[in-house]
Order: sequence, then structure tokens, then C-alpha cells
Amino acid sequence: MISQACLHDALSYGKCFTGLGQPADYIPELARVNKHQLGVCIVNLDQEILKEGDYDRPFTIQSISKLVSLILALHDRGGEYLFQDKVGVEPTGDPFNSIIKLETKTRPFNPFINAGAITVASCIDGKDTEERFERFLTYIRHLCNNDEICLNENVYLSEKSTGDRNRALAYYLKASGILEGDVEECLDFYFRMCSVDVTALDIANLSAVLANHGTNPFTGENLIEPSCAKALRALMLTCGMYDGSGRFAMKVGFPAKSGVGGGIAAVVVDRMGIGVYGPALDEKGNSIGGIKILEYLADKLDCSLF
Amino acid sequence: MISQACLHDALSYGKCFTGLGQPADYIPELARVNKHQLGVCIVNLDQEILKEGDYDRPFTIQSISKLVSLILALHDRGGEYLFQDKVGVEPTGDPFNSIIKLETKTRPFNPFINAGAITVASCIDGKDTEERFERFLTYIRHLCNNDEICLNENVYLSEKSTGDRNRALAYYLKASGILEGDVEECLDFYFRMCSVDVTALDIANLSAVLANHGTNPFTGENLIEPSCAKALRALMLTCGMYDGSGRFAMKVGFPAKSGVGGGIAAVVVDRMGIGVYGPALDEKGNSIGGIKILEYLADKLDCSLF
Amino acid sequence: MISQACLHDALSYGKCFTGLGQPADYIPELARVNKHQLGVCIVNLDQEILKEGDYDRPFTIQSISKLVSLILALHDRGGEYLFQDKVGVEPTGDPFNSIIKLETKTRPFNPFINAGAITVASCIDGKDTEERFERFLTYIRHLCNNDEICLNENVYLSEKSTGDRNRALAYYLKASGILEGDVEECLDFYFRMCSVDVTALDIANLSAVLANHGTNPFTGENLIEPSCAKALRALMLTCGMYDGSGRFAMKVGFPAKSGVGGGIAAVVVDRMGIGVYGPALDEKGNSIGGIKILEYLADKLDCSLF
Amino acid sequence: MISQACLHDALSYGKCFTGLGQPADYIPELARVNKHQLGVCIVNLDQEILKEGDYDRPFTIQSISKLVSLILALHDRGGEYLFQDKVGVEPTGDPFNSIIKLETKTRPFNPFINAGAITVASCIDGKDTEERFERFLTYIRHLCNNDEICLNENVYLSEKSTGDRNRALAYYLKASGILEGDVEECLDFYFRMCSVDVTALDIANLSAVLANHGTNPFTGENLIEPSCAKALRALMLTCGMYDGSGRFAMKVGFPAKSGVGGGIAAVVVDRMGIGVYGPALDEKGNSIGGIKILEYLADKLDCSLF
Repeated sequence: MISQACLHDALSYGKCFTGLGQPADYIPELARVNKHQLGVCIVNLDQEILKEGDYDRPFTIQSISKLVSLILALHDRGGEYLFQDKVGVEPTGDPFNSIIKLETKTRPFNPFINAGAITVASCIDGKDTEERFERFLTYIRHLCNNDEICLNENVYLSEKSTGDRNRALAYYLKASGILEGDVEECLDFYFRMCSVDVTALDIANLSAVLANHGTNPFTGENLIEPSCAKALRALMLTCGMYDGSGRFAMKVGFPAKSGVGGGIAAVVVDRMGIGVYGPALDEKGNSIGGIKILEYLADKLDCSLF
Repeated sequence: MISQACLHDALSYGKCFTGLGQPADYIPELARVNKHQLGVCIVNLDQEILKEGDYDRPFTIQSISKLVSLILALHDRGGEYLFQDKVGVEPTGDPFNSIIKLETKTRPFNPFINAGAITVASCIDGKDTEERFERFLTYIRHLCNNDEICLNENVYLSEKSTGDRNRALAYYLKASGILEGDVEECLDFYFRMCSVDVTALDIANLSAVLANHGTNPFTGENLIEPSCAKALRALMLTCGMYDGSGRFAMKVGFPAKSGVGGGIAAVVVDRMGIGVYGPALDEKGNSIGGIKILEYLADKLDCSLF
Repeated sequence: MISQACLHDALSYGKCFTGLGQPADYIPELARVNKHQLGVCIVNLDQEILKEGDYDRPFTIQSISKLVSLILALHDRGGEYLFQDKVGVEPTGDPFNSIIKLETKTRPFNPFINAGAITVASCIDGKDTEERFERFLTYIRHLCNNDEICLNENVYLSEKSTGDRNRALAYYLKASGILEGDVEECLDFYFRMCSVDVTALDIANLSAVLANHGTNPFTGENLIEPSCAKALRALMLTCGMYDGSGRFAMKVGFPAKSGVGGGIAAVVVDRMGIGVYGPALDEKGNSIGGIKILEYLADKLDCSLF
Repeated sequence: MISQACLHDALSYGKCFTGLGQPADYIPELARVNKHQLGVCIVNLDQEILKEGDYDRPFTIQSISKLVSLILALHDRGGEYLFQDKVGVEPTGDPFNSIIKLETKTRPFNPFINAGAITVASCIDGKDTEERFERFLTYIRHLCNNDEICLNENVYLSEKSTGDRNRALAYYLKASGILEGDVEECLDFYFRMCSVDVTALDIANLSAVLANHGTNPFTGENLIEPSCAKALRALMLTCGMYDGSGRFAMKVGFPAKSGVGGGIAAVVVDRMGIGVYGPALDEKGNSIGGIKILEYLADKLDCSLF
């Protein structure tokens, strides 16, 4: 079991590296954050919660939301259809916003690159964006044990107004017959789901559900099909840290999903969920301090899968 | 000088090949055309006009409009700026609607692939789409000696509703800082300019202006800067027939620009403009009968540049 | 603990799928094998060995040898240097013999694609090919508990005479300053190491060493640095099954490395090494029956990491 | 008709730009040349010869030899076969030594990129490299009116020892079934043909034959089939200046072929052949001073095709 002191040391270790990264700068809301912020939270499956640093500072969930939307789409369409016709499950060596492989392969490589996540977003049931986003919000509040989770309106508007690269991906996918429904509605949902404010504590709760085979460790409620939770953990390990997933598997060794808001959701199966937040990113787009905290913990807790 | 009999033979020769191609099928308006239609018109610089076959059947100008929009943009921005900052002048081995090279090179390779033509369209002055399209229409009517030229509303609406691949290109260019102004407005103009109805006679007139260094051979009015007309002829030769330009240079050997509506504008400098129309396309997207007519004429008239 | 009956059922299950694949056909020695062959062997860390089917039929190790050469190169050069300057640790969505990414990224993505494995082979110490191959042979005999392991001369000669794609990769890497030493000598070593004959039993022994943190479970001899064994397990999980690694992680969920000879080495850490052999390959180049056996075992033994 | 004074001015103009380029630096023999050298020679079809600057300084022919080898291969195999099965005639936006498109298209795009030229070299008849090179040498001496033309042994040996990128291309082509015969023999011929020493005068003579439809203007001997000479002129225009061919067509406007040795062969059909030499290259690999001389002459002599 991890001690508060150990978590404190992990945070201190992570702090040494925040100066080496930079916050995402494509919208002002992300760019102007203090890059030395760093927080971590662990939710053990025995319900103990440990927190350090900026664990309760809100940040936008960004790509970590791809976990939640994928669960919804798997629920609505089933893995058979989704992973066969819509999106692959293979890592790709290309950056998260790359469009190149779509011209030769059509189907996005996996649900965590932007092209894949936009496709997945188009497969979530709902009569309109409003209804889809309500489903998303209700669901993520359950996963995170936090009924206060809501949209960061400013980030959403900025994302929407600057999201031309994602728009290009979406229209390309539409032209290829991959993306379903209306493109702008799909993108609107996508920008919203990426712009939800969460904390490291929220993310740790979500991760704990994945670590607990889909069951909320506090309420005992089953929120994710166990087989779906397992599939997600596998995908997180091979594709969760963008084109830095291989190195992360070697250095840390458990499933994780990062977002350019600075968050990382990490799962130690049968033991704990971990949420970290540190907005300084490395060149792959992953939280630089967050990765260092996870390296430290993986080593101290001996919880690499390898 | 070409005789009517020779032109008749050229058409007959071209007719042998229309069965080997297919009309463009991405919108119903293009798909349902009779693929055996074939027409040709020659406008000699001495004002003689020869016509054969379906020379007066209207078809949508499609990519041949890229000549006209490029002249307007060169007028508005100058070649220095346009060919330096916005679009290259190099042929590319990729298909006309390819997006791959945009990820590695940013700037479209030339003004005749879709990405380049959309960029060029965004560089035409005008307070809104309406005004830009009015300028285009006025100008093309002068170039073609035909005040009746106007928009094919059905094709325009179909293009607009199915143009997601072009939308993807446009948003990608916007995200890269290449495309100017509003994306949807630019695309609206682009779809309109491609959807203008013309005939082989119209296209022959336009080509005659290019053959005559920018001066209308009938009115003597200078419509294109001579240096601009020369640049266009060079670009047409290296890039005008999509990724079939090399073979066309070898087999025919004079500047030409094709469109998926089935038209080809061909220029024999100091001698004549040629317009052909044949909606059956080869696998590169060029009129299959039209190319054969031009091969025949190049041979009989000895007017290859090579 | 697994029973003989369970292993028997696993083999029977795998047999249902051998008809769907094809043996590798680029050299006659591989092409003419009976594609319905299938064998499996498990070496438990408590020294129990279970075998079924064609467990003792020799086949060429092919890409599974990349595990062994990587250990040698890591020993000779250290991971710091090797994974920094020579080869990455990231999965790539491209096929194992792809050359495309070398033009944009220079360094091969990981040590298990051919470009990476050839680079790694060039980093193994030895005054000549003979000495390097002797080291390889001595070492693999220890890892597999089998002093009889030796070169399949016919396969080696065929590989060498048809290996032009690998030659292209090697010369490209040489031109980029990645590959060290003489290209043909490096390739000669590479073709030899791929052409060593092994059995499913041999592969299970090798896997057991990896499962046992580098220590031979029978002799107690440490053969691989524990940290190196861990790095290999992580790499196997993310990159071991070519561009089918993501699906394998999701369906099976433990580290594995396949070869086009039909073998797969699979590692259940702290529990067992598994060797399978089935020459019918799927379109990714992985043993189709072998994967099915591993799916069956992962399910029955509940040994997915996820 | 051009005057000596005009040619002198052209050279002076070109001299202003030599400082902006760099000699090729991949072998010491090319790197250590004085980059301010510049020469030009014009062979008029009426047999007048004009020379300026370093017109008689030897340099290695490099890629200009691709003209000669292509004529030989067209003679030996015919255009039908060569341009159908072996190599395309389309320009490509990629650099001359690119390997990327070979993975998706197999057949090289045109005979002037390295992959295409190596393929063409493999289609020249001869019982061995010696005999093939003898044929090449005999033929180029005729084309250049110079029996002294011979191999630069030092450059050849350097090319051979550093030609790994070309080796990679050749083995890739062999593996794809495109390249015929033995790879190393083909490369040996290729390195030799590129390492022949010529002068601007030699190149002007060769160009004059192409300008004169294949007939040596001095001897009246037909050296190239007229249709073959025409095909070459077209190819030179669309592909002769690497991925700078489009700009060259626009700025200069007649067929030309450059080499990294600093030479350019340029053809004004029915009028003259031009040879220039200036080892300072631009970023595309074309002689920077040479291009400026040709721009000057195209303008003064009004000999653009456009």
C-alpha cells in the first residue's frame, strides 16, 4: 500500500521536470496556465483516497474524454461493429492529429488518435448534440463520483473556433463513408466532450472504476461491462500516450490515457486508479511532470505489468 | 491550317474510345450523362471557327475554371506573393484530391490540384461570395465571348452537398494558415465556379485568348497580362492534366487543362485555341475521347511543342 | 495450473483455424510446409513441461530471433545508447518490412520491424559474422536449454538469395548513418540468425526465461538482466505481433513475439513460458492457429495482463 | 541569332548568383570544386558554336547521363515496353532520391528520378557491365562529337563507395520485380555512367542533336530516332529539373536536364543546343548560376515554348 509520504516524494520528483515542458498553446485558455502546477490523486480500491499538490485544480479533460465516449459507443454499437467497420485497435507511429494514413487506409488506426475519436463520437446515440452531450455528462459524473462536472464554456468556444484540423479530419472521414451523421454536429459534441472540467481526483475515480473491472469501488455499482473495461485497459497500454505509448509501457508499464490539458488517467488493475495533472507537456503532448510521477510510483509500488 | 474534314476525322477517331471511359459519378448530374457525347471546336487566331459534334452541348466547366480563378488571384495578389506564400508551381505525382502532401509540405504543390485551387480561390478579392462570383462570371463571359454563361444551379447544389473531401482540404489549409478568410465562403465560391455551364465553343474561345498572349482575337481587347498567359501555359503543360500530365506532354505536347465535366481547354500558342468535350473519363479523370482528338490534331497539325 | 486436457483442447481449438491461413511463400523452404501442423508447449516456472501436437517439429525461428539479438545488443551497447541513437521503442502501424517511415524519421520505430532488427544486428560485437553468429548460437542454446540448436543451411541460403527487400532497408539505414559496420556482413548475420531451427519446446524455454525475470527456471542461471527482460516484455506487448499487436493485446493480453516461420514466443510473467508453432499465417504474418491457441489459454488461465 | 556579347552578358548575370549555392558534398571530388566556376556553350544548328567562361572545364555528367541511357534502353526495349512495365513518364513532387512512392506505386514515376534511372540502366543490353559501359561511352562520344570522353575514375570509385542510398533503391526495385538482372552489376554501370567527364561544350553538342530531331548537325548522321528525341524533350520539360521542373518551365520554358555535377543540357528545338556548367547548386540540386544563364537567354532569345 502506498503511503502519503511516498506520494509526496513522487510529487516532488515530478516537480523537477515541469520546467522542461510547455502547456498546449493552440488556444489561449490552455496557454496561459501556470506550467508548474502539478497534482496527483490515488483512489485505492479499498476506498482510501490519497492526494497531493494541485489535485483539486480544474483542467479540461481533453483526450481523456475519449475513454468515456468510447465506452458509450461500445455500449450503443457493440465492439464487433465498432472495431470492425469504424476504427481499428492498432497503435500508429504518427502524431495524434495526423491525416496521412486516412488516405491509404481509410479507417482510423485506433479510437485515441483524433480521427478515431471523432469517428467514435459519431457513433454515440442521441437525437441531437444536446442529448448526446447530456448522456456523456451524466455518465462521466457517475464514473468520477462528481455531480458537479460540467462544461468549460470558454475552452469549448475556443476549441470550436480553432478546431480546423479536426474539422479537416471529420470531413475527410465523412467523405470516406466512415463518419456517421452530420459532421458539424459530431464536431460540436467532440469539442464539448473535450472541454469538460475535471480534477486529478475526478480522473483518479474514473481510473479506479477501470481498475475495478468497471465497478465503482465506493458504490458497488457496475458502470462499465468488465469485458469493455478490459479492452480499454489494453488499448490504453498500446495507444493511450499517443506516439509515446511504447516508451511509457517500458518505463511505467500500466494502462494510461493522457490529454493535452495536462491530465493522465492511469490504471493499476485490481489495486488503484491514479489521476495526475500537470499542464507542462513534452513534445508528444503528454504531461511531463505527470509521467515522472507515474514512473516514480510504478517503481516504488512495483506495479508495472511487465 | 486545319480543314473541316480533318476535324471531322479527329472526332471520328475520338469516338472510337468513348466506350472505354466512364463519366464522373460522384454526383447524379454528372453520372447520368450520355458518355458517347463528343464535340470539338477550334478558334483560329485569324477568327476562323471550326466545330464538330457536340460542340454546343453545355457541360460544367469543373477544373477548367481553375484557369480563370488563377488569373483573377494573380491579378489581385501578384505572382510574387501567390506563388511564394500560397501555392507552388510544381507537378505532383498524387491524385488531384490528395491530402497527403499537405501534412509534410503545408503549401499545395500547384494551383490545379484541388488543394491549390481552393487556396487560390481564397485569394480572390470581393466583399463576399456573391461579389467574388460576379467577378468570376463577368470575367469568364469576356474570355469566352459569351454573355449567356451562367451557373448550373443543380450541379452547384450537388457539388456543395457532397463536397466533403474538398471541405477536408479547405479546413486543413485553414488550420495550416494557408487558406485566407472564411472556409465555407471560400468553398461556396469554389463550388460555384466549378458549376458554371460552358460549351466546347466557349472553351475554345478561352483557349484562343491564352494562345493569343491574353488578347481576345475577335475584339482585340487585352484580357490577360501576356506574362500571366505565358505562366498559365507553362503550368498547364506541367500540371494541367492531373497526374496524367507527363504522358499528355509526350503524346500531345501542348498546354491543356481538363475538368471532370469532360472538357479540355488546349492551347496552340500563336495559332489557335481548342475546346473539346467528352464526358467519358479515363482513370486519371481526363476526357478519354477528348485526349484522343487532341492526339490526332497534334499529329496532323504538327503542333506539339516538342 | 494448466492441465494436459486443457492444453489438448487449446490445440484442438487452434486446429479449426489453420485452414484459413497460408504459410509464408517467399522462399520454397517455407512455402512447401504442411500448413495444418500445429504444436504447443508450456514451460511452467516450477519446471513442469506440457506438450501437445507438433511441439518438437523444427521450424526456422525467423523474427523471434529478434528477441535474442536485441538482448545481445543491449548487453554490448546499453539501452541508453541503443534506444536513443539507433532504434525507437514505439509501435508503428506499418507492415514489418516497410521502408516509408525511414525517409521521414530516419531511425527505425522499434527493434522488431525489419529495419529496426537489422540495425540492432549491426550493434552486436564480434570481429566478424562468424564470431557474432557463434555468440548468438551459444546464447540461444542457453536460453532454450538445447545444445543442438543450429543453422538451417537451406533456409539461410534461400533467405540470403531472396533478401533484396531487407538489403534495401539495410543500405538505406547505412546511407542514413544508422546502420554500423559493413552492410553485407550485417545482413549475412541477420539472415543466419533468422534461419536457426527451433521447436515449440525451445521457444517455450526461451519464453520461460523471460517470464522468470531472466533466470533459467531449471538451472537457476541468470541469462538476462531482469531490467532487460522487463523491457523486452513491454516491447513484445506493444510491438511483438507486427501491426496486429493492438488486437493481440486486446484479445490475448500478454507479451508475445511471432515469426513468419510459424512460431510465437509468449510470456506469462511469474508463471510460464509458452511456445507455439503453426505455419499457416494470417495477413499480418502471425501464426493463425498459434494466436487461437493463445486466445484459448489466456481465457482459460485468466492470464491477460488486462 | 545570339551574339557573343549577349552570351557574355548571360554569363555575367549568372555569376551574380553562384555565391548563393553550394557544390554537391556527398563525395569529396564534388565538394572541393570552386563553386564560382561558370561556363556556357551554344551549338547552333547552323554549326556555329559560341562559348563563354569555363566552357571547357571538365565536370562529371551525373544525371545528364540519364538522357543517354534512356535512349539506349528505348532502343533496346522499345517505348511501349519500357514506359508501360518499367517506369512511368509522370513528374513527381518528391526529391530525386526518394524511396517513398516505391512502396505504394512499385514502378518509378519517371526515368529521371534515381529509382527510374537505375531501372532504365538495368534495361540496357550487354553481356556484362563492361560491354554496357562500352556501348554507353561509344554512344555519348558520338552525341557529343568528342572521342576523348571517358570515365573519371576517382569520382566513379567515390560514387561506388558512398552510393548506399542508390543501392537501397536498386534492391527495393529488385525485390519488387522491376529491376532486371544483377543489382550490383546494374549499379556498377549506373555509377560509371554518372561519372563520365564532360564539358559544357560536350553537353551543348548533345543538346544540339536533341534540338535537331536526333541528327548530328555537323555530320548529318542520325543518332536518335526523331520520335525518341521528341519524347525526351517532353520528359525533360516535365521532369528534367527534379522537383524544380515546374518553376523552370515557367521561368525558362524549354527542355533541360540537370546533374549534380553542375551541368545542364538545354534544348531549343530547331535552333540550338545549350550546355552550361556551374557547380554551385540550389536546394533542388540544380546549378544555380546555370539556371540564371538559361533564364537570361530564354528572355533575350525569346525561346520559351510558352
